[in-house]
Amino acid sequence: MLWFESDYTVGAHPAVLAALVATNGENLASYGADVYTLRAKEKIRAACGGRGEVYLLAGGTQTNMLTISAMLASHEGVIAAETGHVASHEAGAIEHTGHKVLTLPHSEGKISAAQVDAFVEAFYADPVYAHMVHPGMVYISQPTEYGTLYSLAELEALRAVCDRRGLPLYCDGARLGYALACPENDVSMADLARLCDAFYIGGTKVGALCGEALVFREGAAPRAFLTYTKQEGAMLCKGRLTGVQFDALFTDGLYEKIGSVAIGCAAALRRALREKGYAEHIAAPTNQIFVRMTREKYEQLRPSVAFSFWEPLDAEMCVVRFVTSWATRPEDVEQLCALL
Amino acid sequence: MLWFESDYTVGAHPAVLAALVATNGENLASYGADVYTLRAKEKIRAACGGRGEVYLLAGGTQTNMLTISAMLASHEGVIAAETGHVASHEAGAIEHTGHKVLTLPHSEGKISAAQVDAFVEAFYADPVYAHMVHPGMVYISQPTEYGTLYSLAELEALRAVCDRRGLPLYCDGARLGYALACPENDVSMADLARLCDAFYIGGTKVGALCGEALVFREGAAPRAFLTYTKQEGAMLCKGRLTGVQFDALFTDGLYEKIGSVAIGCAAALRRALREKGYAEHIAAPTNQIFVRMTREKYEQLRPSVAFSFWEPLDAEMCVVRFVTSWATRPEDVEQLCALL
Amino acid sequence: MLWFESDYTVGAHPAVLAALVATNGENLASYGADVYTLRAKEKIRAACGGRGEVYLLAGGTQTNMLTISAMLASHEGVIAAETGHVASHEAGAIEHTGHKVLTLPHSEGKISAAQVDAFVEAFYADPVYAHMVHPGMVYISQPTEYGTLYSLAELEALRAVCDRRGLPLYCDGARLGYALACPENDVSMADLARLCDAFYIGGTKVGALCGEALVFREGAAPRAFLTYTKQEGAMLCKGRLTGVQFDALFTDGLYEKIGSVAIGCAAALRRALREKGYAEHIAAPTNQIFVRMTREKYEQLRPSVAFSFWEPLDAEMCVVRFVTSWATRPEDVEQLCALL
Amino acid sequence: MLWFESDYTVGAHPAVLAALVATNGENLASYGADVYTLRAKEKIRAACGGRGEVYLLAGGTQTNMLTISAMLASHEGVIAAETGHVASHEAGAIEHTGHKVLTLPHSEGKISAAQVDAFVEAFYADPVYAHMVHPGMVYISQPTEYGTLYSLAELEALRAVCDRRGLPLYCDGARLGYALACPENDVSMADLARLCDAFYIGGTKVGALCGEALVFREGAAPRAFLTYTKQEGAMLCKGRLTGVQFDALFTDGLYEKIGSVAIGCAAALRRALREKGYAEHIAAPTNQIFVRMTREKYEQLRPSVAFSFWEPLDAEMCVVRFVTSWATRPEDVEQLCALL
Repeated sequence: MLWFESDYTVGAHPAVLAALVATNGENLASYGADVYTLRAKEKIRAACGGRGEVYLLAGGTQTNMLTISAMLASHEGVIAAETGHVASHEAGAIEHTGHKVLTLPHSEGKISAAQVDAFVEAFYADPVYAHMVHPGMVYISQPTEYGTLYSLAELEALRAVCDRRGLPLYCDGARLGYALACPENDVSMADLARLCDAFYIGGTKVGALCGEALVFREGAAPRAFLTYTKQEGAMLCKGRLTGVQFDALFTDGLYEKIGSVAIGCAAALRRALREKGYAEHIAAPTNQIFVRMTREKYEQLRPSVAFSFWEPLDAEMCVVRFVTSWATRPEDVEQLCALL
Repeated sequence: MLWFESDYTVGAHPAVLAALVATNGENLASYGADVYTLRAKEKIRAACGGRGEVYLLAGGTQTNMLTISAMLASHEGVIAAETGHVASHEAGAIEHTGHKVLTLPHSEGKISAAQVDAFVEAFYADPVYAHMVHPGMVYISQPTEYGTLYSLAELEALRAVCDRRGLPLYCDGARLGYALACPENDVSMADLARLCDAFYIGGTKVGALCGEALVFREGAAPRAFLTYTKQEGAMLCKGRLTGVQFDALFTDGLYEKIGSVAIGCAAALRRALREKGYAEHIAAPTNQIFVRMTREKYEQLRPSVAFSFWEPLDAEMCVVRFVTSWATRPEDVEQLCALL
Repeated sequence: MLWFESDYTVGAHPAVLAALVATNGENLASYGADVYTLRAKEKIRAACGGRGEVYLLAGGTQTNMLTISAMLASHEGVIAAETGHVASHEAGAIEHTGHKVLTLPHSEGKISAAQVDAFVEAFYADPVYAHMVHPGMVYISQPTEYGTLYSLAELEALRAVCDRRGLPLYCDGARLGYALACPENDVSMADLARLCDAFYIGGTKVGALCGEALVFREGAAPRAFLTYTKQEGAMLCKGRLTGVQFDALFTDGLYEKIGSVAIGCAAALRRALREKGYAEHIAAPTNQIFVRMTREKYEQLRPSVAFSFWEPLDAEMCVVRFVTSWATRPEDVEQLCALL
Repeated sequence: MLWFESDYTVGAHPAVLAALVATNGENLASYGADVYTLRAKEKIRAACGGRGEVYLLAGGTQTNMLTISAMLASHEGVIAAETGHVASHEAGAIEHTGHKVLTLPHSEGKISAAQVDAFVEAFYADPVYAHMVHPGMVYISQPTEYGTLYSLAELEALRAVCDRRGLPLYCDGARLGYALACPENDVSMADLARLCDAFYIGGTKVGALCGEALVFREGAAPRAFLTYTKQEGAMLCKGRLTGVQFDALFTDGLYEKIGSVAIGCAAALRRALREKGYAEHIAAPTNQIFVRMTREKYEQLRPSVAFSFWEPLDAEMCVVRFVTSWATRPEDVEQLCALL
């Protein structure tokens, strides 16, 4: 079976696993006070331009709900694309913390500075706005749920609107490693740290067994955030589990390497698909490839390839998704291409 | 340094780690649908007498808050010993889900059937009880936070009161492995499964890197509990992480072995302490030992032994805690004894 | 000034006020145990066909949030028209209780049985539905926020879908009195009681100073709902305040009379508007009239008529809203007509 | 029947009722924007020394839960006497908003500055305090649930500790009018406004049909608090209901007069009880009188006097409570005395 279903079907990157094995026997402080966690945080701060407050958490939905609920006042909601992960695929985690997701139409997974500005303008123009959920922050993802990227110019425009409107900006980087490795990308990790009030560096989908590194702008972390993570059941007793993994991911450029491998494979696959005449459904440069395919071909590939049916198009055609990761090998791509 | 500080300072038991390594490269289904998770659940069901609904979660506070909030109606609170973990050391996680912890005085960490009965009796005898938080379930821990054990008779009495009063019974088994291995213990895992509406089998403190196995009585799991775990940010994307570990813990009697090693070491240490004239502060048979010690001795041991100051007694004496685990070696105990 | 702004700008209907005055000096039981509250509940039950469990609350948003949150499990959301009051004008009260509002496109404020059915069908057809908020109940309003009415056939179709899909049906009757009095209406209070799992009979907008009467289907009230109202700060100490008012509203057909006066005035105004060539923007038969008007005319009327600018149409035209109530007098309508 | 059961068994004070009647026919702005609400707020500000931000709410539990939840961060709890209304008789409303009530032992309903200081000191001295609910504010009541009073010196000491510890101070004044009228009292409304970050002036138990006036220190009201009240279902559509009542209560010294009448009657009753040999159970100077009585006498009085059994003392004796209010007449006290 060829695996192109997602970037989280294999365990940890071998170097991450090796770090877990190497440190397993050591007696370490618990609840995130161990040396590996401290070291990982320092390395992440360095990658963020030397500033920022870092917290390690176990998963993406957890990180989103904790961050968003800690940054919003009770009467506020979070602005997001209607396709944003928080809007659709987190089982109402944001609402469960008491906050509405204020959705905007998306453009290939993205929302624009102009959209945010217009939404806020219209909100306060409504004479009964005091009876409605106030816009309290902006949520974006890089790459988006559709694999697309915000350019630096787009991000800076969003930041400018957020400044003008008094809204914090938060970026979900569940697959950030795959954005950073794209030739088309012009947004560095330091840019995100500079332009966002908070963002997270995805681990689970980028080589870790579990774990996301949440970075607040220096001085902007909510008070007693550590206690809040405990209160939400998100503080790991053996904090070493995420500490050791992120220490490894930020050693010897591993996080970048993981991204490069996946993006290299995705580029090769994209080329092959284009050559074979498949139309790309969404022009996304990262490790998710959305193409149009006949339903017949889809059924034909299924026994030998693990990949996703995305949505139906018409009686004959559908959209499918292929995903590469650090675990994808060039020969996997070649074998898949031979079957296309 | 000799480590007797807690049972979660080392990583995973070697057999658990080996299982993670062995399966790391496999492509597996995500969100808990992988074969190891399914197998782990089957093994746990078998250990519970062939019945029950099993969920794997990442940590103890998370498991407590999810279970308790899912089992209570809004107007209900959970009865617990004032020393119960949910009452004091979970950063208000239970209250954060909207529920009051209704505390009862403890007797070496335990509450009795008679206490629960009297509390409920008094509650409904109060003419304004409709203005107060209703007792909605009972929380106990086995072993307790003080390392003590409920006997089978005590548990059956609690069950009988719960039946009579219409209250579900929930048991926190964060250190369950150490209870099961005690010669003094007469409560099996199957007994817990039979007598509780829900209980959890601790992994984090019993040889896993992370993970707790929550068991609901057959048919008693809250509706759509899986979605609820997602909503609370508690569903691991790579469910294999807990699945593989619990599969290993329930293979070849590993969970029992882990308990036995720790209890063996604890018994040896307890004997040595007694012989040297230390008075046990709490008569606890599990892997936590609470003894009285001069402050001078405490200070003298600190540079070479990692253990806990528990509470002051008077100007001269204090209570300290030693904890053993699967990672404690007989020679560690011997070396500690030599220093006492 | 002629008042057509809303149906809540005047105090209580004189008969309601008289009842408050007449009973003011009596010593009565508190927290809703007084004779007037009990009598009001009995009269409401009678009006509902002799069945149902009645609770008196202070306001509409309060009633909606209490009812919806008490009827939903944590992982569930409420299906509503995107124009539903709970979706837009309650400051996120539903989300604040932890639940998402699952919005459907509206047709003049209404949603259809077919829409609900298709939504639920599509939801469970999605292979990742376990990661999404489950549809847990259906919210409608009678009359709707646009003043339109569900017919008995439409309501019965919704009920049938709800039965098939296992969803409770809840109806917001903030302006119910004005629906009941319409010649076009074929849904009685007893029909609502029969077809809904819960609905409320609006008092605040129908002659009371405050108060809504929530009716659960017999046996369907959430456990300890009274305690839940206390927990949400919604239990009035002097329950007589709502009890006396609803007792008056349900005496000598007052609730019907209030509706008739308002609907009579609305019909007269609607006729006059039609004769003068104003186009009705929404074909609504109740006490809210939405018509198209030049902006010039709107500005001209403002100094002498209190009414609402609803939305702009184009550079020249806009939509305005006139509302009648029990306090509207025929001469008010005549004077307004003279100005049109 | 003689009524000494509570201060909320009668409707509104005649002057308050008269104001409702007089204004009933006026068309007024809704949601608290009416002239009476604005006027009431100005009068209350004046009574508070000319500063403060005033909100009118419907009831005491509602006011407590809104204020406390809006002032606390998620990881914080509220310090209160174990006898505090929020700790025991509000159905877990505080916990329902996600916050633990951190109870201290009481001394006749009061807590001291020293107790609060010691609690906070001990909290931060605990090395695992990050795993526990942080003290976030202090709740007191004036008069207390036992009818006792904080002296100005006690209040100033609490304020000093709160300043030193960075804790807001909140005072529940459900029966404030009865405190202010006591000869023993040396704390004015302006003192409360100066020393508390927030406090509320009780209306429901002091002559209103419903309503409490919440006063935040100038500039200290939570952002968008009005929207928050809407979100919690606490914003009355016809805000005039509380506006007109508080306007009346703060006109011509009515609030003071109400207090004086009740305290005058209470003093007379207290004297009579003392003369007849009844021992006061709690030395409380306000409108609640707790005395010891034989059970026989209690049973003998019941058919002709409405008053409360408070708690049993022994086989023969019990504690009972008599409450006076603005509606108590001298002849009621005389008749009661004749029966004692």
